[in-house]
Amino acid sequence: MTDIKQQAMQCRDAAQATAQLSTGDKDALLRAMADALEADADSILQANARDLDAARAKGITGALLDRLTLDGKRLQGIADAVREVAQLPDPVGQVTRSEVRPNGIRVERVRVPLGVIAMIYEARPNVTADAAALCIKAGNGVILRGGSEALHSNTAIAAALRRALREAGLPDAALSLITDLDRQTMIDLLQLSDIIDLAIPRGGEGLIRFVAEHARVPVIKHYKGVCHLFVDASADPALALRLLLDGKASRPGVCNALETLLVHRDIAAEFLPRAGAALKARGVELRADAASLSLLGVDARPADDDDYAAEFLDLILAVRVVDDLDQAIDHIRRYGSDHTEVIATGDDANAARFVHALRSAVVMVNASSRFSDGGELGLGAEIGISTTRLHSYGPMGAESLTVERFVVRGEGQVRHPDLLAAD
Amino acid sequence: MTDIKQQAMQCRDAAQATAQLSTGDKDALLRAMADALEADADSILQANARDLDAARAKGITGALLDRLTLDGKRLQGIADAVREVAQLPDPVGQVTRSEVRPNGIRVERVRVPLGVIAMIYEARPNVTADAAALCIKAGNGVILRGGSEALHSNTAIAAALRRALREAGLPDAALSLITDLDRQTMIDLLQLSDIIDLAIPRGGEGLIRFVAEHARVPVIKHYKGVCHLFVDASADPALALRLLLDGKASRPGVCNALETLLVHRDIAAEFLPRAGAALKARGVELRADAASLSLLGVDARPADDDDYAAEFLDLILAVRVVDDLDQAIDHIRRYGSDHTEVIATGDDANAARFVHALRSAVVMVNASSRFSDGGELGLGAEIGISTTRLHSYGPMGAESLTVERFVVRGEGQVRHPDLLAAD
Repeated sequence: MTDIKQQAMQCRDAAQATAQLSTGDKDALLRAMADALEADADSILQANARDLDAARAKGITGALLDRLTLDGKRLQGIADAVREVAQLPDPVGQVTRSEVRPNGIRVERVRVPLGVIAMIYEARPNVTADAAALCIKAGNGVILRGGSEALHSNTAIAAALRRALREAGLPDAALSLITDLDRQTMIDLLQLSDIIDLAIPRGGEGLIRFVAEHARVPVIKHYKGVCHLFVDASADPALALRLLLDGKASRPGVCNALETLLVHRDIAAEFLPRAGAALKARGVELRADAASLSLLGVDARPADDDDYAAEFLDLILAVRVVDDLDQAIDHIRRYGSDHTEVIATGDDANAARFVHALRSAVVMVNASSRFSDGGELGLGAEIGISTTRLHSYGPMGAESLTVERFVVRGEGQVRHPDLLAAD
Repeated sequence: MTDIKQQAMQCRDAAQATAQLSTGDKDALLRAMADALEADADSILQANARDLDAARAKGITGALLDRLTLDGKRLQGIADAVREVAQLPDPVGQVTRSEVRPNGIRVERVRVPLGVIAMIYEARPNVTADAAALCIKAGNGVILRGGSEALHSNTAIAAALRRALREAGLPDAALSLITDLDRQTMIDLLQLSDIIDLAIPRGGEGLIRFVAEHARVPVIKHYKGVCHLFVDASADPALALRLLLDGKASRPGVCNALETLLVHRDIAAEFLPRAGAALKARGVELRADAASLSLLGVDARPADDDDYAAEFLDLILAVRVVDDLDQAIDHIRRYGSDHTEVIATGDDANAARFVHALRSAVVMVNASSRFSDGGELGLGAEIGISTTRLHSYGPMGAESLTVERFVVRGEGQVRHPDLLAAD
């Protein structure tokens, strides 16, 4: 047996213990995990310093280095986030439906943990604690496989969290960190279809494609966000501009940022000059079709097909004038990534058609794409944003780490009572 | 591009039309499909006769031949089943939750179709109509890949159903039958991860393993049912006997039939002699551990590990005496298949522990395992019984062919209003 299989089997066995914890015990455990992170602050920050030294030696700078960096305040934020997970409602044991059938049996749907979740992610060490907390909250075991850049940080964070498990009398294998970062080991992990119930890859497109390619276990992808804003002819231009600037310029590097602006022909002459000036003032570079180029009133590069399919994750926006709502819908169906789409409109019928015609995970009417986030949508915390149209679609919270099963209670009902006449 | 990819892409495009049908239009379509099956009765039965001739020539007999056989009455049953699907509630568009966030945005969870479902099954031609009806009811496109034994029957049934689609002005590619039954073609289909949203294999263990092995698309397995009945010390023996006989002898060849009986030591001397006699009277062969062998009072073979792991699908039952509830739970965790487990008990605390400790898809208290069925549990119709602990766990109805997404309505809310001060 491979080491990774043994590690996964230990996690599965340990997950039988976490699955049966009461809500109170889980929440106490999560608070103890937060305490352990605070108690280990020095060793975690020292481990992070080693990761940062190695990253700098490899020439990593800028946003990547920033994501990897921990300090006292960020670590406090991580511990606080774990405490917030403790305060969320417990999805396990929730009865979502209950019905008495004509024969008198009561049929309930009840949430149970998924089992063992493999979380595969890149450089942010906070994911180690965030993902562990949400998985434990939902009664699961979790196997964490972070990036090599954050290995020392992740190891120190996991050590603190695992100590809290042991001190609560639980098997620490319920939270398992993979320190052998060989790609073949990840492949071996992703093949353990009798042990791992779900793999969640979170990171760049390359990582997600690698996981999807090699997995024999179920995968929920957190894939790219090519998010659209369609400004309908009936839109309030000031409202549409607010959504545009918030969506593009408030934090362009995240997956719920806008990448493409579609403008109805009838409002283009009014809207685009204002939009162009406001975007330019915020340093946004534009890739525009011929119709919008002439109206934007600022320098813009002509857009090609690749621009409309791109997740820029930067201060860049593709722009197109469309003839009508149908053309906007066609554009989004063709180029979109099923993540988040927004319509700015004053017309309820058009809003309804936009919502109905598009099957993206999140569709917004007159609200910013930046609300496409577990916290903003009321999930409390998020383990990722699923663009897989199965199980969970859109932001995933603790509930998405459970599944409904059936619990039936009767008084001896059978399907074929005639069979029993003789006894 | 392969033919199968082109066929799948046409189904995906057609599924955009079925996704947007109103409930009334879908239900009218389903009734028209049932009418078309009746209108084509002669050609369907002729096609079935060809399949039966070929099957007999290959030496197929017994239950397999029976499953393949259609006659006027069975075909009427298939058409009636499609009409029943028309009468079920429409899951698409259902708002499962609605909440206004502190900033005033309204967040709804709304069910949408999955998209394209690939149904891969074996010899029963009724699955062609059943699966198509449920997939269409839930607004999906469906690609059907049945077994070679039923190819002519399936082709005739699909032709009738597709004609109903065309006559309703819809693209018949929404219901697509694969007639090239080469295994490589199935592999090609299972690799189309950008087109197929879900594959549901339904059939023997070999088929399911083949699909799971080759799929790059999400798979929900309808795997074996090693279902247990645990007779607790506090059980009413007459009630327990009813559950035992219904579970084992009413229809032993189905996945929700009982395969193993576990009896608490304290009730074994009272229960097992009665159980042994009643099972023997119904021709059930027993595989028993030493403790139960001496109490059953009838001939029984000693049970080994393989017997406890077996899905007999026949009049065979494994039997074991256990020391207590914990040993019963350990046994089920070790040998079970996560399908359906039953406890017969008079003790509410033991019932609660049994339900809580086991994570099988369906857990029953004092009710027959044979209720583990979509119709019996209130789903109306069933496309399979998932033993995959993701998305849908247990019997799957139309709702399991949809997923919840987010619809958000606001009045211009943004996350960073400060960003907009200048405009």
